[in-house]
Amino acid sequence: MSAISFPGKVVALSGGIGGAKLALGLDRVLAPGQLTVIANTGDDFRHFGLHISPDIDTLLYTLSGLDDPVRGWGRRDETWTFMRAMGELGRESWFQLGDGDLAIHVERTRRLAAGETLSGITDFLSRQLGIGSVIVPMSDDPVATQVDTEEGRLDFQQYFVRRRCEPRIVGLDFAGADEARLASGAAAALADPDLALIVICPSNPYLSVDPILAVPGLRAGLRAARAPVVAVSPIIAGQAVKGPTAKMMMELGLVPSAATVARHYAGLIDMFVVDEADAGMDADMDAGAGVRMVAAPTLMRTLDDRTRLARIVLGLAGERA
Amino acid sequence: MSAISFPGKVVALSGGIGGAKLALGLDRVLAPGQLTVIANTGDDFRHFGLHISPDIDTLLYTLSGLDDPVRGWGRRDETWTFMRAMGELGRESWFQLGDGDLAIHVERTRRLAAGETLSGITDFLSRQLGIGSVIVPMSDDPVATQVDTEEGRLDFQQYFVRRRCEPRIVGLDFAGADEARLASGAAAALADPDLALIVICPSNPYLSVDPILAVPGLRAGLRAARAPVVAVSPIIAGQAVKGPTAKMMMELGLVPSAATVARHYAGLIDMFVVDEADAGMDADMDAGAGVRMVAAPTLMRTLDDRTRLARIVLGLAGERA
Repeated sequence: MSAISFPGKVVALSGGIGGAKLALGLDRVLAPGQLTVIANTGDDFRHFGLHISPDIDTLLYTLSGLDDPVRGWGRRDETWTFMRAMGELGRESWFQLGDGDLAIHVERTRRLAAGETLSGITDFLSRQLGIGSVIVPMSDDPVATQVDTEEGRLDFQQYFVRRRCEPRIVGLDFAGADEARLASGAAAALADPDLALIVICPSNPYLSVDPILAVPGLRAGLRAARAPVVAVSPIIAGQAVKGPTAKMMMELGLVPSAATVARHYAGLIDMFVVDEADAGMDADMDAGAGVRMVAAPTLMRTLDDRTRLARIVLGLAGERA
Repeated sequence: MSAISFPGKVVALSGGIGGAKLALGLDRVLAPGQLTVIANTGDDFRHFGLHISPDIDTLLYTLSGLDDPVRGWGRRDETWTFMRAMGELGRESWFQLGDGDLAIHVERTRRLAAGETLSGITDFLSRQLGIGSVIVPMSDDPVATQVDTEEGRLDFQQYFVRRRCEPRIVGLDFAGADEARLASGAAAALADPDLALIVICPSNPYLSVDPILAVPGLRAGLRAARAPVVAVSPIIAGQAVKGPTAKMMMELGLVPSAATVARHYAGLIDMFVVDEADAGMDADMDAGAGVRMVAAPTLMRTLDDRTRLARIVLGLAGERA
């Protein structure tokens, strides 16, 4: 868990829970300021009039150690009095906001109303919580992930939380992405001459990473960077560690495998880290997609798992496909 | 505590804690819909970006039975996780917002931003909490009580909560009152042909009742109503039951007594209910200010105290000074 000497900067692209695990590992083994995490904001929405950025919040809580290790989301030592009181007022309860969690939403909403950017607010929150890495939203402009299902189009949180990913997906749209400007902090991190590695965290490629990649300038920034790009598979032996990735892939007509994810990122990444359970697919992919496959223990149950995987990923910095 | 048969409607003017005690007594002995409480909104302010209406909230919690009987303000069974989390974010903690209490502020703020009126929102909250009486703000327009002290001008909450009423008062101003329009529900209640009694609750006359009286049309509405106006003294034997009333009066060069309060309301009220401890002043006031003095047990410690005083006050409906 001690810091390593790593020669350069690192950029990580991350969604929420799954990606944040590797982001935490990277944060713990790198020195303060070495890591910049570009966070998905396609899941952002307003609830009860408050601006909620679920993936940024998960990164803030995970990297500050405030996350709840048992529930797997939100803050530790959380209470739920607000939601009970909202219930008395007849308000819906499908999206649970903890009492402590509210602080970030209330503070963010107030600052946005006062004209601050999501980047500036995220930086403020991050510093207040003592986080040494930099967390930047992919954009300060609104991007809204829309899920087209057999029941029609759903806002992301309606699909993900309210409907628990039950409706069959037929497609995805990142509304606003075409007009969104890459956040200046994200652009600067990708253009940093000290950049030594770019990591695509094991988040859902379709729901969490694609919205980031959809922001104009992001893909070009990855290609222009001289640092290698390494993605870590969110699929182990055909199963998602958590969440609906495998189910979604099947609904989209894709074989739910690490190889499918590697092909999804082909052209963008140099290396793909798969779990040792999937090591057999190496040869195919190397030949077919120009991506070098690296087998490693990718299941991250403990903090040691996270830092070990982070070290393995960082060890790929000097290599190219 | 059972309802009485009272022939007509009642309007009560009330601030927070002290006034809400009598409002509760009136609410409990009258039938649903008979009582309209016109609430002071001069204390309203924004905190953490949320619109807070302290006196309306106190009335909502008191009349719904959600009030904390031990602490004397806020909600019962309250938790404070939000404030702790705000502390982690470096935000000030002088104004304590409980986790359950936040529900009303968040809901009100969202609805105001959506263009709803404070009256409409207060009515919604009141119904959701099962309150049979009607609570209306004095105005849907902003009025801000400003306290001029020896240290300069302070916003009301800065003076009242943050500075605990310590700075010496030299004057008061109700900013915006001249332009504020009397809330339509308040105007309608005062013009109701069934109106049988108007009660000025035992709130601080200078901080809580004067802002209501400062709204154009309110005084005229009281005078035009054929119902008698009864005020209940917030001062017992030279002391305020709670809060800074007596201290303020001395700083303003006034003798802190029930008689001084009666003179303050002279010309506006027909009867003034004083505590039995102050019964000796009757003769003077009757002669000097044209106000009929009524002695009664005005200290309200229990719910029975509140309903007993409410019955006494309601019993004055058929009388004139």
